[in-house]
Amino acid sequence: MDQSIQHLRINGDRLWKSIMDIAEIGPGQHGGSSRLALTEEDRQARDLFVKWCRAESCSISVDDMGNIFARRSGADNAKPPICAGSHLDTQPHGGRFDGIYGVLAALEVVRTLNENAIKTRAPIEVVDWTNEEGSRFAPAMIASGVYSGLFDRQYAWSQQDAAGISLHDALKDIGYLGQEPCGDRPLGALFEAHIEQGPILEKANNQIGIVTGGQGVKWFDITVSGQDSHSGTTPMSNRKDALLAASEIVGMLNRLALDNPPHALATVGCLDVSPGSRNTIAGSVCFTVDLRHPEDDELDKLEQAMRESLDEISTRHAMDIHLEPIWHNPPVKFDPECIEAVSQAAGQLGLRAQKMISGAGHDACQVCRVVPTAMIFVPCLDGLSHNEAEYATPEDLEAGCNVLLHAMLKVAGVES
Amino acid sequence: MDQSIQHLRINGDRLWKSIMDIAEIGPGQHGGSSRLALTEEDRQARDLFVKWCRAESCSISVDDMGNIFARRSGADNAKPPICAGSHLDTQPHGGRFDGIYGVLAALEVVRTLNENAIKTRAPIEVVDWTNEEGSRFAPAMIASGVYSGLFDRQYAWSQQDAAGISLHDALKDIGYLGQEPCGDRPLGALFEAHIEQGPILEKANNQIGIVTGGQGVKWFDITVSGQDSHSGTTPMSNRKDALLAASEIVGMLNRLALDNPPHALATVGCLDVSPGSRNTIAGSVCFTVDLRHPEDDELDKLEQAMRESLDEISTRHAMDIHLEPIWHNPPVKFDPECIEAVSQAAGQLGLRAQKMISGAGHDACQVCRVVPTAMIFVPCLDGLSHNEAEYATPEDLEAGCNVLLHAMLKVAGVES
Repeated sequence: MDQSIQHLRINGDRLWKSIMDIAEIGPGQHGGSSRLALTEEDRQARDLFVKWCRAESCSISVDDMGNIFARRSGADNAKPPICAGSHLDTQPHGGRFDGIYGVLAALEVVRTLNENAIKTRAPIEVVDWTNEEGSRFAPAMIASGVYSGLFDRQYAWSQQDAAGISLHDALKDIGYLGQEPCGDRPLGALFEAHIEQGPILEKANNQIGIVTGGQGVKWFDITVSGQDSHSGTTPMSNRKDALLAASEIVGMLNRLALDNPPHALATVGCLDVSPGSRNTIAGSVCFTVDLRHPEDDELDKLEQAMRESLDEISTRHAMDIHLEPIWHNPPVKFDPECIEAVSQAAGQLGLRAQKMISGAGHDACQVCRVVPTAMIFVPCLDGLSHNEAEYATPEDLEAGCNVLLHAMLKVAGVES
Repeated sequence: MDQSIQHLRINGDRLWKSIMDIAEIGPGQHGGSSRLALTEEDRQARDLFVKWCRAESCSISVDDMGNIFARRSGADNAKPPICAGSHLDTQPHGGRFDGIYGVLAALEVVRTLNENAIKTRAPIEVVDWTNEEGSRFAPAMIASGVYSGLFDRQYAWSQQDAAGISLHDALKDIGYLGQEPCGDRPLGALFEAHIEQGPILEKANNQIGIVTGGQGVKWFDITVSGQDSHSGTTPMSNRKDALLAASEIVGMLNRLALDNPPHALATVGCLDVSPGSRNTIAGSVCFTVDLRHPEDDELDKLEQAMRESLDEISTRHAMDIHLEPIWHNPPVKFDPECIEAVSQAAGQLGLRAQKMISGAGHDACQVCRVVPTAMIFVPCLDGLSHNEAEYATPEDLEAGCNVLLHAMLKVAGVES
């Protein structure tokens, strides 16, 4: 590669300023942002993003799911564009970086290419995916899901927010219902830069996560049926305490994950006790299970082991335990060439990097089913996200954006 | 004792019919009763009870907590009366027997004495205590509590129901605010017949529980403080899962009770998880602890052992665990002479009886602090109570009432 290209660097200050500018739209009470998908705030953020892209001479396309593609021409515009981006919407009490960083890092790549008059072989595109968070319209990642053929367009359009407004009408209301059918747009590759939203990079003192895929998830609901009875009149030997059995299951699931290191994860996040009275033994307990593993067969084995333990606990306590599968999202593996481009870029930049799996879902985890994809993670303070206190340092954001630049250049090619 | 007295028996059919008649007032949807304290339904039940007592030539006194005392004169009316009773109010979805049995069994004793023209030495009284259940006005057993000096009268009067009506006004509204200061009435002894509300007698195939006291209760709230984090991005090794620690505590409390048989009881009846999201590790869990034991020093030891285990769990999980004492109701021991009267009565009637501790609170557990007291339990189906399906057989109710009759005669004395 040309020596001058190897020394090309993005402008970290400009990137930081753009992130802070967008954060002003729908500002939170505690330093973050509140910019739910397709609200007036989201419209303002989209408009500012489009204005910035137009200022870089990009052409703008909006598809019928409201995804925005800003295109910078290449030397060979017959080639499918090399795309990067993420999302501009936030959680109700969201941070300034989750999603926004990926969109504006991609824009910063375009700005850097423009100011250095670099001509890529394939065109470059910056994308903002609609409603990634899922906070206003369920499910999350709905528009990248339609793009990838995972969700039907009519299904997505008909999703309603809490006020009964459909996603379709919300797109129309803010002027982002495009003509191009979502999914028709070919992409040569997709890169998504994102804060890690976990503690792994920070703990390892690494600046770059070379994300090789997303883990699989299985969600379940469990109901344990015991018997309501009086805490004062029921001997210990005569109880069917559903909370006692549920507590054992919580411990069992934790051990199950610990016994399958380093990737297995098991979490009980919701648990409801009925009747919920101080002096009544719980007759019924319902709770959720979230099982994760990067390998689908390992995820199946975790489920199988869980089922066997539940049978044992059910028999021992003489209580019915009902397991209801809720959702299965299989693991995804990113594209080897894209991963290699990220890895090489990090190496050539001399950054402390590690390969890792994405713990959370991202638009890239949907699109990777139809487009060669990889992700770049940067550390975030204490692994905290979906919280106004979410923070990433300007230095780490700059480093991740430089990796994005060079990974994209590798895949897009540069006219010498 | 006179041979004819020894063969005296109450009328089981009459007792059953009276119980069923009262159950018609505020009938439940599923065979039980809904007769909250000092409602129109309670007034109707009180009025019927008073009518029945007057028909037995009893004189009626109502104190300023609405407790009704129906007196049958004795040979020596200077002696304090030997009293028996319980309460006519019910839970919102209450049964037909809890409380009502004790009042009507005492009335049946009076009826039996009248039809057999038995003159007791001390007068006999039947009592209906106000608001035992605590479903309308907190706390439970409020009027027997005022009688016993545990609660201040003004405090009790000022308690409000959910609609903001004070207990004082409710007493006035239904015409049961008497003049006599509650607690001023001397009683020579108090007996309370009651369904067990637990499974012990049924399991042991015994008809009579000779209740020797009430167990002590300590209530606590526990808050475990962990850290909210993402179920997909937080490695198992990096979690502060408050629900995991709380689950261990639930198991620990159960073992603590099992390790201190046969009397120790430990129950977690309420448990709330925050933030309560399927894919968020619980940052905070609050739950209740109900510890019981018939011996106060054993109850203290249970608390101490619990505190030590909490310290260990807190250290091991590196999470703050806050223990908040909510209530301590020390154990009560009933009067040896009254217990002996019950025991002898059961023996002389040839009934299968066992000594036992009351698991639940009762008016007798309050009044026993100032009056020689004992209780008589009869089995109830499956130990079920506070439920419309609550059931006791006519045979067991009759047996318990015969024990009550003979215990009262022993203590009151009979004119030969």
